[in-house]
Amino acid sequence: MPADTAGKTITCKAAVAWEAGKDLSVEDIEVEAPKANEVRIEIYYTGVCHTDAYTLSGKDPEGAFPIVLGHEGAGIVESVGDGVTNVKPGDHVVALYTPECKECKFCKSGKTNLCGKIRATQGKGVMPDGTSRFKCKGKDLLHFMGTSTFSQYTVVADISVVAITDPAPMDRTCLLGCGITTGYGAAVITANVEEGSTVAVFGAGCVGLSVIQGAVKNKASKIIVVDVNDKKKEWGEKFGGTDFVNPTKLGDQKIQDKLIEMTDGGCDYTFDCTGNVQVMRAALEACHKGWGQSIVIGVAPAGAEISTRPFQLVTGRSWRGCAFGGVKGRTQLPGLVKDYQNGTLKVDEFITHRQPLAKINDAFHDMHAGDCIRCVVNMREGS
Amino acid sequence: MPADTAGKTITCKAAVAWEAGKDLSVEDIEVEAPKANEVRIEIYYTGVCHTDAYTLSGKDPEGAFPIVLGHEGAGIVESVGDGVTNVKPGDHVVALYTPECKECKFCKSGKTNLCGKIRATQGKGVMPDGTSRFKCKGKDLLHFMGTSTFSQYTVVADISVVAITDPAPMDRTCLLGCGITTGYGAAVITANVEEGSTVAVFGAGCVGLSVIQGAVKNKASKIIVVDVNDKKKEWGEKFGGTDFVNPTKLGDQKIQDKLIEMTDGGCDYTFDCTGNVQVMRAALEACHKGWGQSIVIGVAPAGAEISTRPFQLVTGRSWRGCAFGGVKGRTQLPGLVKDYQNGTLKVDEFITHRQPLAKINDAFHDMHAGDCIRCVVNMREGS
Repeated sequence: MPADTAGKTITCKAAVAWEAGKDLSVEDIEVEAPKANEVRIEIYYTGVCHTDAYTLSGKDPEGAFPIVLGHEGAGIVESVGDGVTNVKPGDHVVALYTPECKECKFCKSGKTNLCGKIRATQGKGVMPDGTSRFKCKGKDLLHFMGTSTFSQYTVVADISVVAITDPAPMDRTCLLGCGITTGYGAAVITANVEEGSTVAVFGAGCVGLSVIQGAVKNKASKIIVVDVNDKKKEWGEKFGGTDFVNPTKLGDQKIQDKLIEMTDGGCDYTFDCTGNVQVMRAALEACHKGWGQSIVIGVAPAGAEISTRPFQLVTGRSWRGCAFGGVKGRTQLPGLVKDYQNGTLKVDEFITHRQPLAKINDAFHDMHAGDCIRCVVNMREGS
Repeated sequence: MPADTAGKTITCKAAVAWEAGKDLSVEDIEVEAPKANEVRIEIYYTGVCHTDAYTLSGKDPEGAFPIVLGHEGAGIVESVGDGVTNVKPGDHVVALYTPECKECKFCKSGKTNLCGKIRATQGKGVMPDGTSRFKCKGKDLLHFMGTSTFSQYTVVADISVVAITDPAPMDRTCLLGCGITTGYGAAVITANVEEGSTVAVFGAGCVGLSVIQGAVKNKASKIIVVDVNDKKKEWGEKFGGTDFVNPTKLGDQKIQDKLIEMTDGGCDYTFDCTGNVQVMRAALEACHKGWGQSIVIGVAPAGAEISTRPFQLVTGRSWRGCAFGGVKGRTQLPGLVKDYQNGTLKVDEFITHRQPLAKINDAFHDMHAGDCIRCVVNMREGS
C-alpha cells in the first residue's frame, strides 16, 4: 500500500555539507517525490565512512557543495516512481553506490561489478535526468555517490537499491552498503582466495577486518594482519587473523621482506585497505613470485601514484584492484545477508560507536579515533 | 652411441665478452665435459637478442665478465653427465634459459613457469655446483642465463634443455629459445586471450609480432599494433595485425586515449614488448575498465619504475607480466614446434638477417637496424 506521502515532497532532517572543511549541518530539507525509475527510501541507519570524510575535507578535487553525503545506508522504501519493478513500498533495502542495471556492457560482461549506466550523472551529483531531488533554503543540494544516506529520506535510481527479503536488522545491513562488503567481496569474489593459501591484509579497519572474514571463509591457512596500531592485533584475531605485524616496529626490515620471510617466499594474496600508495607498493612486493596477487581496495588521495619495478610483474605477480569488493549489489548482496544470518559473516562486531543524526559530526570524530571500527548513525533521531 | 669427445674437454670457437661495452671476441675456448645432471650441446644456431646486447653494454648492474653470452640456441647433444635421463647424445635440442625441474615449489604449483631450482647459481653465471665449464687463456669464463649459446659447445643443466623430437630445422627452432616463445606464450598461455577480444601490442619486434600470432591463434577480433617505426605497419599485417598506430603521430592525443577511442572503451588485453616504463603505463591505461589486462613482457633498464594512479586498478584493470611467455620449456616447447609445423606459428618469417659466428658483432649491429627482426648466427662458421 503506498504511503500517504507518495507523490508529494517530504520535508525531513538531513545532514547538509554546505562547504568543504566545515562540519555538517542538520537542516530541514525538501525531498521531491521519485520520478520514473527512481525510488524514495526512508533511511533508518547509515554508517559513516572515510570516503564521506574525504569528500567533506575538500581534498577530493571532484567534490562539490552543497551536498548530502552518506553512502552506507539501510531503510524502507517509501514510494517508487513509474516503471520501478525491483522494489516496492515497504521493502527493506540497502542503497548501492555501485549500481547494477543488468543491461549495460559492463553488467553483461560477467567480468565486473562496475555498472556504467548512470556513472556520468552519479559522478556529477545529480539523478540520471540531470537534476536534484533535494532542496534546502531554496537551494538545490547535490546527491552523493547516487545514495545520499545522510538524509531521513533520499531518492535513488532503481538500479541503486536492493531489497533484503531475509529479516536482518537495518542497523547491521546498512554496513553491507560499503565497508564490510568491500572487504569481504575483495577476498571471496575479486581474489577468490584459494584454500590453504597465505594472505596479508594491510590496514585492519572495517574493510580490512572484512577481508579477513573472506579469507577465513575461503579457508586461507595463514592470515597476517598488518597495522601500525597495536590495538588492531586483538581485532585481527577476533575476525580470524592468525598473525599480526606492526610495520613501524621492524627496525630496518621492510614490511615486504618481513612478510616474505614469514611465508617462505611471499603471500599468495595481499590486500591494501589503507589508501596509502607506499603501502600498496609494499603489498605488491610482499606477494609470492610466480603467482602472488595484490588487490588494491583503498582509495588514494587525488594525484597519488603507485610505483614499482616492472620486474615484480615480469616475475609473475599481479597488481589488481576492485571497488565494492567486486560485488554486484542487486545480484549478490542478498547472499551476504544470508552469510550474516548463518554466522559466516560477522557484522554486529563492527559497531563500536553509535550516534543520533543530531550528533553526526561526532560520528566523524569517532571514526578518526583508534578504537572505532564503525559508527552507526540512527537517522530517526534528528533532534 | 657416445661421441668420441665424451668425457673429454673440447676446444672450440666461442664469442667471448671480455668486458662491458666492447665487441665480442671470437676465441678458442675449452669446454669441460658435463658433470652429473649436465648436458654438453654442440650449438648449431643461435639468435641474438636485446638481452644479450643489454648485458654486453654494461648497463645491467648484475652483468659480470668475462662471459659467454647467448640464450637463444639450438643444437645437438654431444654428451651427457651421470644421471641425465631427459636427453641423450644425438638429440636435437633447444636450450632453456627458463629451466623446468618439475620438482620445486614453483614447478609443482601449476601456476608459473619460473622454476626455482638453479636460480641462484644461474644468476651468478655458474653451473649448479658453483663452477664454470668454460676456460679461455687460462681464465674461467662465466655462463650466461644458464645457456651460453655463443659457443660452438656449451654445457647446461639437464633441466635447461628440451629435446625436439619432431623434425624442424635448427636455424628456426633456435628462435623458440626466447623471442618467439616469449611473445606467443604471453598471448596464449599467460593472458590466454579470449575469442573476439581486442588486443594492443606495443612494439612490433620479434616478441611483439609473436604476441600478434598468439592473439590470432586465440581468435582476437582486433589486434592493434603500436610502434614508432612506420615500417612495422606492414610487419604487423603480415602476422595478422588488423590496425596500426604510430604514437608519435597523434598530435596532442595520448596513445592510451587513441586506443580507448578505437576500441570503444579500451582493450581487453595489452602487451608491452618494449621495456620502456612509459609505454608500460600507456599499455595499462589503454585497457578497458572493469576487466582489461596489461601484460608486461619487455625488460626495463635497471632502476626504472612503472607508475600509475591506483584508480586504474580499483576500476578493474590488472597489471601482470611474464617471463618466457609463461611457457614451461620442457613441457610446452615441443607443442610450439608442432604449431610451427602445422602452420599456426610462423618462424621462418622472423629471420631477416644471417651471420656466421666469425661476424657475430655484425649480428649485434644488424639487430639495432630498423629492418631487422631476428639475425640468426650460424655457429659452425667460426672462421
